[in-house]
Amino acid sequence: MDIRVDAARLRKDIEDLAGIGRDPRGGNSRPSFSRADLEARAWLMDRVAAAGLDCRQDGAGNIFGRLGGPGRVVVAGSHIDTVLNGGAFDGSVGVLAALECLRRIKEEKLALAKPLEVASFTDEEGNLVGDFLGSRAFVGGLKREDLEHGTTQLGPAFKDILAGTEFTVDGILAAGTERPEVEAYLELHIEQGPVLETEEMPVGLVDRIAGKRYRLGSFAGTASHAGATPFELRRDAFLGLAEFAVKGTQHTAVRYEDGLMTIGKVAVLPGSFSIVPGRADFSLDCRSASAATLEAMDRELLALAEDIAGARGLSFGSKLVDATEPVSIPDRMLGLLKEECRDLGYPNMTLASGAGHDAQILASVTDVGMIFIPSPDGISHSPRETINWDDLEKGANLLLRSLIRLAR
Amino acid sequence: MDIRVDAARLRKDIEDLAGIGRDPRGGNSRPSFSRADLEARAWLMDRVAAAGLDCRQDGAGNIFGRLGGPGRVVVAGSHIDTVLNGGAFDGSVGVLAALECLRRIKEEKLALAKPLEVASFTDEEGNLVGDFLGSRAFVGGLKREDLEHGTTQLGPAFKDILAGTEFTVDGILAAGTERPEVEAYLELHIEQGPVLETEEMPVGLVDRIAGKRYRLGSFAGTASHAGATPFELRRDAFLGLAEFAVKGTQHTAVRYEDGLMTIGKVAVLPGSFSIVPGRADFSLDCRSASAATLEAMDRELLALAEDIAGARGLSFGSKLVDATEPVSIPDRMLGLLKEECRDLGYPNMTLASGAGHDAQILASVTDVGMIFIPSPDGISHSPRETINWDDLEKGANLLLRSLIRLAR
Repeated sequence: MDIRVDAARLRKDIEDLAGIGRDPRGGNSRPSFSRADLEARAWLMDRVAAAGLDCRQDGAGNIFGRLGGPGRVVVAGSHIDTVLNGGAFDGSVGVLAALECLRRIKEEKLALAKPLEVASFTDEEGNLVGDFLGSRAFVGGLKREDLEHGTTQLGPAFKDILAGTEFTVDGILAAGTERPEVEAYLELHIEQGPVLETEEMPVGLVDRIAGKRYRLGSFAGTASHAGATPFELRRDAFLGLAEFAVKGTQHTAVRYEDGLMTIGKVAVLPGSFSIVPGRADFSLDCRSASAATLEAMDRELLALAEDIAGARGLSFGSKLVDATEPVSIPDRMLGLLKEECRDLGYPNMTLASGAGHDAQILASVTDVGMIFIPSPDGISHSPRETINWDDLEKGANLLLRSLIRLAR
Repeated sequence: MDIRVDAARLRKDIEDLAGIGRDPRGGNSRPSFSRADLEARAWLMDRVAAAGLDCRQDGAGNIFGRLGGPGRVVVAGSHIDTVLNGGAFDGSVGVLAALECLRRIKEEKLALAKPLEVASFTDEEGNLVGDFLGSRAFVGGLKREDLEHGTTQLGPAFKDILAGTEFTVDGILAAGTERPEVEAYLELHIEQGPVLETEEMPVGLVDRIAGKRYRLGSFAGTASHAGATPFELRRDAFLGLAEFAVKGTQHTAVRYEDGLMTIGKVAVLPGSFSIVPGRADFSLDCRSASAATLEAMDRELLALAEDIAGARGLSFGSKLVDATEPVSIPDRMLGLLKEECRDLGYPNMTLASGAGHDAQILASVTDVGMIFIPSPDGISHSPRETINWDDLEKGANLLLRSLIRLAR
């Protein structure tokens, strides 16, 4: 069967969506439940309806477009929310490629055994109360207390943000009970890293999705005068953090094949030219596709921080603020994607996803598979995020063929 | 001659001044030319007049109280401005102990050959346009462009702050031409470090005052996704800074007997949990009492930063934002202070001052000497800054005897 997506139509959809929520400071700012997101949701539901699909929205604001009757459904999707000043492709390509696939299947009047759905999950980016609000709600993985007392990345309380929408905490929690049985879930996404471009592969097949541990850590010492305090009498909190950053990164790189650690946020207090820092607060992002590695990294890095603090007369503390577990893509799904790639003649490679995705959450209720397309220069979460349109066409064709095979 | 200060009267002056500019967030906030500082100036001028001294203020707002007629004047003083949320002793003890000394000399009707002055210099703390505005103006060391286009640590332009006072750029620049010939300058100050307390000495005699170099530096790399960017493809700007902090400190501690480096301000951008830092900005404070060491440190640390940047695929840049030169206390002054200490029976030691002081600026026009008293726990620039009143009495008596000897 030589069915293919309409690449020009898909591109127009992506460009139209990119026109919603443009930020004067650059890129797109479309956090879930913002005015821009509500506009994007209305636009998407229009496009779903225009494709002749049955449009449905659950209590968490996840949007679905169905082709076919009742039964265990094959789902493909991603998300249309963005980080602040994000790009036009992260998430969007997965939702709109899935929509294009269903449109083509409907146009070709293919008779399939199972229904298909395009899905757009709410707040994948975690601007509200942790990553993956929509897909977590979909699989029934949310707790009421996280929602009722949640403070968002954007500032206001989650309840206050909800108050401006048609959504409620009860509705979000009910999403898991409304959902259909899912036969399989496929997600096309930009890689957000440089591996496929470096390897010159138009398509990547994800074999594992890394889990993560987010911690907030703090070294505490004594603020003192930079001129009047000899080295041997200092308790410099920033030097504790600096040593931890260097040694922790080295430890992780040497000891674990696929572990990553990143210190992305740093605050040094009191923060003056002439004052030895009394406190150094930081974020610690640990990732691995192996649960055992993740567990060991977390334990060993905390022990390293304690050791460094002890040797420097500092104290160290941290708290876990978010966690997701690693997922292995089932052989059935990876095998199917590989076969379709081979039939299409697309060069490809398997790789782990270091970034988290809705597929990771869906993995608790169904078999999932993921297709990556390259991110030029590895850039994502940035106004400079882009794609090669040829790669997108290949990824979307692979998604189309794989969906047909799963629904047959 | 067994003349001594009135320690109770001196203490009351210090406590009265500490009542001006109390900050509800803690300590005293009395930056020069603030409302609190203008109130403190009026109070000081009242105290100077009440002591029967001739009160004079120069164009830079430096306040003087003179005892005696014309001629080369022996000056003692310090400053009454504070950092934000500073303590009650940094600067104040030097001005008010000098005032107490002149009061006692006047009360005893001592006949001295040379006139004496108590001095309070404007903005020693550098809240406005760099440290030592008043003493720099006094020695004629200011440039018009630094004043006219200066942005202050407090936010507003320097000109806008001046507009709320009786002072002008022209007046500040004229201060150097109005000043009398200075025979010698003595300054009593809290140590602001832990050395005297550690050594259990009530009094310290400064033999050198460190110079400093203030730089703003920046490592630049590429912001990228913390999950999707393998270590070998990262250009993590914060790791560059962390390695520089650890190695630079080690280099300075090992190679230089009296060199100090401090990284007190750090900003990591974009500053998100899941983004590898693309930029790390920081402040670099280098100090040494040896000009050659300071020069070598500055050169070698910049070379180290360049090396680290090169090895990590980063770029590095920095600019010098402030500098003062080290000063050696003349043998004449140090010898005189030592002899008076011995006569008074005070245990003492010589030490270098890592912090900068007005004495350092005055050194370009006269012989200077400095007396330190201990800072309990080494704490300064903090609401918890304190002194032992017994130490202050000793320091003030030493100042009194030394002033008499210099003016005889």
